[in-house]
Amino acid sequence: MDILFKNITVVTMDSSHPVLTNVDIGVDGRKICYISTTTDSPSQTPKRTIDGTHKVLMPGLYNCHSHAAMTLLRGYAGDKTLEDWLFNHIVPMESKIIEVPGLIRTGTLLAIAEMIASGTIAMTDMYFDVDIVARAADEAGILANVSNAVVAFDKDHFDLTQSNEYEQTMRAISEYHNKGDGRINVDASIHGVYTSFPNTWTQVVDWANQHQMHMHVHLSETKTEHENCIKTFGTTPAQSFNKYGVFDIPTLAAHGVWVSDEDIEILAEKGVTVAHNPLSNLKLASGLAPVDKMAKKGVNVAIGTDGMASNNAHDLFEELKMASLLQKYATNDPTASPAYDTLMMATRNGAKSQGRGHESGMIKVGYDADMIMLDFNNPRQTMCYDPVANLAYSTSGQDVQMTLCRGKVLYEKGEYKTIDIEKILYDARTAMDSLLRS
Amino acid sequence: MDILFKNITVVTMDSSHPVLTNVDIGVDGRKICYISTTTDSPSQTPKRTIDGTHKVLMPGLYNCHSHAAMTLLRGYAGDKTLEDWLFNHIVPMESKIIEVPGLIRTGTLLAIAEMIASGTIAMTDMYFDVDIVARAADEAGILANVSNAVVAFDKDHFDLTQSNEYEQTMRAISEYHNKGDGRINVDASIHGVYTSFPNTWTQVVDWANQHQMHMHVHLSETKTEHENCIKTFGTTPAQSFNKYGVFDIPTLAAHGVWVSDEDIEILAEKGVTVAHNPLSNLKLASGLAPVDKMAKKGVNVAIGTDGMASNNAHDLFEELKMASLLQKYATNDPTASPAYDTLMMATRNGAKSQGRGHESGMIKVGYDADMIMLDFNNPRQTMCYDPVANLAYSTSGQDVQMTLCRGKVLYEKGEYKTIDIEKILYDARTAMDSLLRS
Repeated sequence: MDILFKNITVVTMDSSHPVLTNVDIGVDGRKICYISTTTDSPSQTPKRTIDGTHKVLMPGLYNCHSHAAMTLLRGYAGDKTLEDWLFNHIVPMESKIIEVPGLIRTGTLLAIAEMIASGTIAMTDMYFDVDIVARAADEAGILANVSNAVVAFDKDHFDLTQSNEYEQTMRAISEYHNKGDGRINVDASIHGVYTSFPNTWTQVVDWANQHQMHMHVHLSETKTEHENCIKTFGTTPAQSFNKYGVFDIPTLAAHGVWVSDEDIEILAEKGVTVAHNPLSNLKLASGLAPVDKMAKKGVNVAIGTDGMASNNAHDLFEELKMASLLQKYATNDPTASPAYDTLMMATRNGAKSQGRGHESGMIKVGYDADMIMLDFNNPRQTMCYDPVANLAYSTSGQDVQMTLCRGKVLYEKGEYKTIDIEKILYDARTAMDSLLRS
Repeated sequence: MDILFKNITVVTMDSSHPVLTNVDIGVDGRKICYISTTTDSPSQTPKRTIDGTHKVLMPGLYNCHSHAAMTLLRGYAGDKTLEDWLFNHIVPMESKIIEVPGLIRTGTLLAIAEMIASGTIAMTDMYFDVDIVARAADEAGILANVSNAVVAFDKDHFDLTQSNEYEQTMRAISEYHNKGDGRINVDASIHGVYTSFPNTWTQVVDWANQHQMHMHVHLSETKTEHENCIKTFGTTPAQSFNKYGVFDIPTLAAHGVWVSDEDIEILAEKGVTVAHNPLSNLKLASGLAPVDKMAKKGVNVAIGTDGMASNNAHDLFEELKMASLLQKYATNDPTASPAYDTLMMATRNGAKSQGRGHESGMIKVGYDADMIMLDFNNPRQTMCYDPVANLAYSTSGQDVQMTLCRGKVLYEKGEYKTIDIEKILYDARTAMDSLLRS
């Protein structure tokens, strides 16, 4: 046994016993091997023992919609209209960023450092140079489903196999997909209904089928996108994608702010995961997704941060707290989106969406040791009548003291075990300083 | 000179030069005595020099609506309807808490510890046993305006001078009010239009006049309160209070969720500060205050956390981020409530509401050294194109490394200089465990 957590409080996310107090949890290699309430005492002596007094262990969090490398643009050009922000500031800077060798790698690792320090062990990422993103995620030791969104404004003659997105994705596939330990998956991705046409969608669907990829799309993020789609295609974004077989692929749809009741039925029936990004949606004044309604209709709702130019933090504890509070507000019902349901969104629903529901997202013997340990011995977490309530409503990412993915410690009390953090901070600042001057 | 911050980035909240980079800031006794860009070099050698590389200094935050001792009920009975939560859980537990000697003191210090560790240097508090609250705030070294809200269901025969609230407040007044260094002020308080009658309000107004007290009230927190007031008195809560002279006293009105356009004009004209409590208002499904509109109409809007049974954190950085994002959402305008304006709410507007605008809330020579220092040398705060944007949108209370109030260090890197934190945590847990068993 590699690690034994002694006398710790555990929020398992296993509905048969969601909270365990004063238990011992053992980790061996990649797996959770021992829980004192359910398993026989292990014969092995643990290599390391951790005192769990006033600590809480829970499954690591899934960030189900990110553009990690955009962390290079954290706080850049905020408080602007969507058009001004996107076309006059973000897009021009991104086009410079992708030209600098190594910069997407730096930006991705900067994001992952922030993620693991705040309890996130998995990301569903969409960005340029997906092969580089895949390599950075692999090095950092997290779980990742990565994709490069196809954008194609040529309505009739687009050839997927001639695109950059295809080439980069195929490189990532040959290096990672369905290989080794499956920690890195490569997804197909259609950016959105407003940046490509059905001719593209069917090609991406065929391609996804061919390589058993999942699908990552933007869906009904803004009212304009949603309504223009109805004008152009006669159907909503969800209905349009569904018509062309997109949702026959296991799909992660980001946002879903403006989905109709009929859309929600389709999403539920097709098993589409909706990644809710509450803070980004508020900051860009996109709106508020009907999360409570979607969840009640059986849609698998997960949580994401979106990119750092529209948020501006990778703290999933902040997102999940707000996800819950915003539904209480929107439904005029303080019992809506209770604490446990919100934690589900950030753990098991995320694991399910990445195709890892059978091995991650719960603290259970035989599951991967994808876990985080938080300190509750401080004023912020006192009183604690119910650790589930405190995790949902009183916790910030900085309460995380230790992050494990597949049994490997990635972060502990300010130390990054897989990332050279000083170099990443230096490289990011130096490169962006020089870009801004150019 | 006691402390010299060298080469630091400063968000001054002084509109003539809101951001200074690479400056030196000196503190002597209670005051900011030196800013290298505007003042002659000091002749004195500083007793302590702090390296400001990758650090940010800003004014400490004002929490303008708290019930500090309710921290003892953090996370207690969440996700319930307002009536069930309040009458079946909170009120019965509070009636037990106030019976335990010393427990309100413990709860208040627990709250203050969380506040100072997350950058708050001032609170406008409303709770029972205000003399005990005043003493705790004094010991802890923060700025505080404290009050005990008058509740009186006897429409005709209420005699203020016979009430507990009067007796406790008079004790606090004799000990603190208008005395010494003015760090602790005692306010008068009417709980709300739904828990007393005009006969009470006029008595409290006279009393406030007599002792030069400010006023602290709840105002239009819920739709029910607002509409019932119109049914009972024929006027909204703001109009009702105004009619009986309440707003002739400098007033802090908490919430203001349901205020009408006419109410907003009254609040602006009378110089009433509205304390916005965004997270509590969402969690109890009370609604969303028209902050953007109030600010544009000239109302002094400040920020509060409300009590910990309906929030559940004292992190004002979280509140101010959400205050901004929610206004962008509500007005459908991503340029609404920009970063700097939100920081104003949590600093200068707060100072103004406590009657300290001439000496606190800005980093300026001659002002009190009410300041916090944050660490920006980490992934969360990289990149930083504009410290104002990062403070508003990327910062959590745990980024705070040092908190000074009137030049005195109250908190530094996990250490509390004025509070015996281990004792407070132990006392709070022990007392509440025993109450729950009783």
